[in-house]
Amino acid sequence: MTGIPPTIEWLEGGTVRMIDQRLLPGRLAFVDARTVDELCDAIRTLAIRGAPALGVAGAMGMALAAVTGEPPDDAAHRLLATRPTAVNLAWGVARGRRAEDPVAEAVRLASDDVARNRRLGAHGAPLIPVGGRVLTHCNAGALACAGYGTALGVVRAAHEAGRRPTVWVDETRPVLQGARLTAWELDRLGIPGRLVADVMAGPLMAGGEVDCVIVGADRIAANGDVANKVGTYGLAVLARYHGIPFYVAAPLSTVDGQCPTGASIPIERRSPAEVTSFGGLVTAPAGFPAENRAFDVTPAALVTAIVTEAGVLRPPFALQSVGVIS
Amino acid sequence: MTGIPPTIEWLEGGTVRMIDQRLLPGRLAFVDARTVDELCDAIRTLAIRGAPALGVAGAMGMALAAVTGEPPDDAAHRLLATRPTAVNLAWGVARGRRAEDPVAEAVRLASDDVARNRRLGAHGAPLIPVGGRVLTHCNAGALACAGYGTALGVVRAAHEAGRRPTVWVDETRPVLQGARLTAWELDRLGIPGRLVADVMAGPLMAGGEVDCVIVGADRIAANGDVANKVGTYGLAVLARYHGIPFYVAAPLSTVDGQCPTGASIPIERRSPAEVTSFGGLVTAPAGFPAENRAFDVTPAALVTAIVTEAGVLRPPFALQSVGVIS
Repeated sequence: MTGIPPTIEWLEGGTVRMIDQRLLPGRLAFVDARTVDELCDAIRTLAIRGAPALGVAGAMGMALAAVTGEPPDDAAHRLLATRPTAVNLAWGVARGRRAEDPVAEAVRLASDDVARNRRLGAHGAPLIPVGGRVLTHCNAGALACAGYGTALGVVRAAHEAGRRPTVWVDETRPVLQGARLTAWELDRLGIPGRLVADVMAGPLMAGGEVDCVIVGADRIAANGDVANKVGTYGLAVLARYHGIPFYVAAPLSTVDGQCPTGASIPIERRSPAEVTSFGGLVTAPAGFPAENRAFDVTPAALVTAIVTEAGVLRPPFALQSVGVIS
Repeated sequence: MTGIPPTIEWLEGGTVRMIDQRLLPGRLAFVDARTVDELCDAIRTLAIRGAPALGVAGAMGMALAAVTGEPPDDAAHRLLATRPTAVNLAWGVARGRRAEDPVAEAVRLASDDVARNRRLGAHGAPLIPVGGRVLTHCNAGALACAGYGTALGVVRAAHEAGRRPTVWVDETRPVLQGARLTAWELDRLGIPGRLVADVMAGPLMAGGEVDCVIVGADRIAANGDVANKVGTYGLAVLARYHGIPFYVAAPLSTVDGQCPTGASIPIERRSPAEVTSFGGLVTAPAGFPAENRAFDVTPAALVTAIVTEAGVLRPPFALQSVGVIS
């Protein structure tokens, strides 16, 4: 229980310093980007990930471009090409781009992200029953943001409010953000958690061992459809089948008013090697094909509520007016 | 495409030779047991696994006891203590124990298992639509049996009948029997397959990319409730939600008439280390707790049909009279 340093910060002189999430939970170390290309590389290789963190990274990328004198159009283009699903990246790039002082804007967005997550957590905490057993997928914690967390921010706020939540941590294949990152955060925060293979959600829910599910989001369409880490949709179906509340926690920057429904959200396909190997260890026969979609879409009809910094939204969701990128 | 050797066989002179499934898909090698203890060790460490294969292993264990002169009561006790969920193990031990010639009985059960699986496959093949995209979990193939396979036996029979099935292969965390064993078998049989993380089932079904689910079973209660590899229940719920047929393929030796419902089936809990690491690679923070149940129970109400060597059983299932152990 030793706290969590900032996921991403701007250092005087033009350096973006990030926790290198590729090395967790084995080692807490940092990776620096001094150019847009170095930052793009960190994003692509998942040194930094998580929708709100990518929003801040987008703005910091534009700040790097300003400092190094790279043409902003080109920098924006390269940043946006790294990962397609999290809309926050585009939101952060747009914010950095139109700012008079991109560095000040990036720094402001980072601290603003933490403040918004704390508000989001405060709104969401009462949704967690006292002693509630919360199931979460992937990592929507401090590491997915500039700090504090969204889904885990709600758990953290409930914990700070004395509600004594415990967490079922989905390991989240193929990249294991749950086992590597969420477990690490809970450990540091002193919140009790228990790691499970993703497939354990079914028997846990059937056994009455889950009080609610809470996940983050990479993009939310205007009708409330939610793109999030692959596996989220299956959890939402299971939660509905068992009558368990299914919550999504995300800042309003995750809403894409330009997407009427989830059908228009681009879903990133990543390398099959993430599935045919496990931490560098090959698991499948050589050359065996694999399909690796990084996200799935959960229809709004399966979402009990969306927790935002502006409050808890209940269906029907009509989000046209929020989170507009432009 | 080079075929699959027998999973388990009796060698003249008193040796049980098994494919060492711990080494697949990297290397096809064999492990020999010449004593009951060596066989128990192979079972516990998953060198051999799969309900029908464990049935044959149980009988071969009693044959080893007969050859080495170990007291049958003690041998039976140690064999039964290895793994609790697959009822076939108890069935095979009981068959070996009451046989006049346990060696002949074990050899007979092995060849009988293959013959039963071929009949099961023939009954099940017509359930697979032509060009059908079949999703399967864990490994219920030749490696889970003396040979041929149950769930994969149905796919294989459909393939042999020219129905051109393709297979979505769940990797099946935490032990990865799908990635390691099912993919290997499909590769050897020339049946097209595609590996996916277990969490991909949801988006595949939502996208209309799955025509049916077919899995094996470790124990079937008298009312048709099915214990099988953890993750099976979640697939059954998803299949029901999407209106996709959910088939279970198992020989009648998997039915336990003594269990009225799934609630009386013992569920094996395995080491948390299977979830917090893989192949020696630690994935979670040191000491982080994990929950590792090897099986779950799918209620009969979610099962479209049970495919057996005696034909395709449809609900309501009333299996009191079959597969009795004694």
